[in-house]
Amino acid sequence: MKILLVGASGTLGQAVARHLGQQHQIITASRNSGSLRVDLTDDSSVAELFAQSGPLDAVISTAGKLHFGPLQSMTAAQFNSGLQDKLLGQVRLALAAQHHLPAGGSITLTSGIVSAQPIRDGANATAVNQALEGFVRAAALELLPRGLRINVVSPNVLVESMEAYGPYFPGFEAVTAQRAALAFQRAVEGIQSGETLTVW
Amino acid sequence: MKILLVGASGTLGQAVARHLGQQHQIITASRNSGSLRVDLTDDSSVAELFAQSGPLDAVISTAGKLHFGPLQSMTAAQFNSGLQDKLLGQVRLALAAQHHLPAGGSITLTSGIVSAQPIRDGANATAVNQALEGFVRAAALELLPRGLRINVVSPNVLVESMEAYGPYFPGFEAVTAQRAALAFQRAVEGIQSGETLTVW
Repeated sequence: MKILLVGASGTLGQAVARHLGQQHQIITASRNSGSLRVDLTDDSSVAELFAQSGPLDAVISTAGKLHFGPLQSMTAAQFNSGLQDKLLGQVRLALAAQHHLPAGGSITLTSGIVSAQPIRDGANATAVNQALEGFVRAAALELLPRGLRINVVSPNVLVESMEAYGPYFPGFEAVTAQRAALAFQRAVEGIQSGETLTVW
Repeated sequence: MKILLVGASGTLGQAVARHLGQQHQIITASRNSGSLRVDLTDDSSVAELFAQSGPLDAVISTAGKLHFGPLQSMTAAQFNSGLQDKLLGQVRLALAAQHHLPAGGSITLTSGIVSAQPIRDGANATAVNQALEGFVRAAALELLPRGLRINVVSPNVLVESMEAYGPYFPGFEAVTAQRAALAFQRAVEGIQSGETLTVW
């Protein structure tokens, strides 16, 4: 398959590229590196991405930033930054991708364990990840008659990210990016749709 | 109790005002009517709302618009309209309310059955309502040590709204706004926090 991977330069994206690259052609895209550049917060940048990628069989996103911080001092603007980046960015990619995939094609997004397991300073993360899982569940039902699938992978905190994010995840059983990458293979090569594939 | 009710002019808001008004002092607020006017998409308007309301025991929101429309023609801007209005609008209210409530105070927001039961044209609604339920679940844990509670009521489609929204909800068992109003009383007078109170 020919797979567009957005967020390819991140810790998770690199593992997905490595794992899926063994059997598929991966076109990597990121904000500041990769074969293609894309800003998921910009409609025209996403349109340009698909103009450049050519025909595809699957689209994967491992991209998106959240706001982490205490609820007590959280501003609406901070909360909105996560909505605009990880949530609307990935939704924008999916809304565009549906017009560039043939029947049998798939879209796979990324949420995270905080959707199901709230953490300190994580109100934005829980909301955004839950929204992504809800979007995928609902969107799948409208994509079904067109032969398209959409899923979301929800990984635990990554072993490789523990230095940066470890303090937010006390007692969480970190998983390797390589293990999380397996779930993207399941989503792309499997038959499910509307599912949240948890990795924990 | 003295309760600020935002969205008081809507079908649900009117029923909540009527029901809770039997035992509590209700300050009604809406975009274009009520004792106080507020635009939940505007930080300064929300700040002004709390400046005018004076001391409160509880804050309720029954406000917020979503985007309904086919996924196939949905734009990121349309999806964002629901994020900005029903999701971020209510989150903005809650983030401000936490600074204006005494210990024992509560915040109650509104989601809807589409969070759990996707409908045609409802991808934005499922995402937004799921996000609200996630936000409330996570925020409750940070509000707990400060003696504040937050919950969200998820009503079925309202009997009173069937003329406008009925076609979106085939086979759904519509509930009266009066029945939905009971859940707001449960949220305000009860002890739970972080909960989604379903009315269906």
